[in-house]
Amino acid sequence: MSEETKNGPWVVRSSRLTFENPWIRVTDHDVLHPDGSDGEYGVVSFKNIAIGVLPITERGETWLVGQHRFPSEKYSWELPEGGGLVDDSPLESAKRELREETGVSAENWIELTRFDVSNSVTDERAICFLAYGLHHGQSAPEPSELLDVKKVPLKDVYHNVMTGEISDSLTIMMVLMASAKALRGELPAPISSIIIEATKA
Amino acid sequence: MSEETKNGPWVVRSSRLTFENPWIRVTDHDVLHPDGSDGEYGVVSFKNIAIGVLPITERGETWLVGQHRFPSEKYSWELPEGGGLVDDSPLESAKRELREETGVSAENWIELTRFDVSNSVTDERAICFLAYGLHHGQSAPEPSELLDVKKVPLKDVYHNVMTGEISDSLTIMMVLMASAKALRGELPAPISSIIIEATKA
Repeated sequence: MSEETKNGPWVVRSSRLTFENPWIRVTDHDVLHPDGSDGEYGVVSFKNIAIGVLPITERGETWLVGQHRFPSEKYSWELPEGGGLVDDSPLESAKRELREETGVSAENWIELTRFDVSNSVTDERAICFLAYGLHHGQSAPEPSELLDVKKVPLKDVYHNVMTGEISDSLTIMMVLMASAKALRGELPAPISSIIIEATKA
Repeated sequence: MSEETKNGPWVVRSSRLTFENPWIRVTDHDVLHPDGSDGEYGVVSFKNIAIGVLPITERGETWLVGQHRFPSEKYSWELPEGGGLVDDSPLESAKRELREETGVSAENWIELTRFDVSNSVTDERAICFLAYGLHHGQSAPEPSELLDVKKVPLKDVYHNVMTGEISDSLTIMMVLMASAKALRGELPAPISSIIIEATKA
């Protein structure tokens, strides 16, 4: 019984690693619920932080990356995203992802939002950035990825977020958060006015 | 070789169920990447849809539910949320969750947003609703849950979303989407003006 640990109001009586690959670890915990009843809690731990980037040009354009998502078995257009190792700087991971997927680098980076992606089953965290003052270079996607990349008006991305055509959580979150922060005057003036113009009603 | 299947540009050579509990199923797929290289893809399939509800009173109040989240090992204040079986009506699941956690029922329901929660590893989908025209009853949380429930101004929730104090993805998404839809005139006038007042800069 000395191996019992606490996780908030839960007692964890034992834990068993049931699956591991380079991206996740699935652990099954034998627990006592807060009310004392027996149970189990399966947790999916992520080895990466989800990183998202909203790059914006002076002309109010951004980039969408299209790919077939294996888990949902559907094609999805999204802002540049990727995984950053938990111990790496999220900002450095964001810079790398943007460069690899679009060939773009940026002078200015602002953290837009961080959140728990799916907190009933996973410990996955997301950190998202706004990037502006852009320079164009050469993209270098990972060879195992098959990506379509296109430069599009942020206005069109906002429209597709609001209609539901874009269904990726990080993309929706970044666009809505950028719009809300711009309206609240929480972003630098030049980029703020571009976002307000692109996301106005 | 006849057992090979396709998932978009991936070839799935074999699949193995590695973990299952009442909420998730973890399947390890032996695949060929889009570029033809060998690999594996571990997918976490969800048996439930994530359901979220943003209830709003005529005085601009909503409800927050506080609980220790086992996977992230931290306490989290969130709008009413829960799981709805994939084959059940999301709206009926939302009505049940709101009633169980807060004791509230609502005359008016509007779908706010639906999205893929974490699409690199899971197939989890979320569907979120706005609820107004509220009637108060008796809450009946599941006995295994230890929930704190409080009625709070939506204005305060919006503030905590913008500062990052609230970190739950569904809660952030619902508040930002309600604000954006209200500003765009996509919600009925009475509830729209309450939301605009609570989420103005």
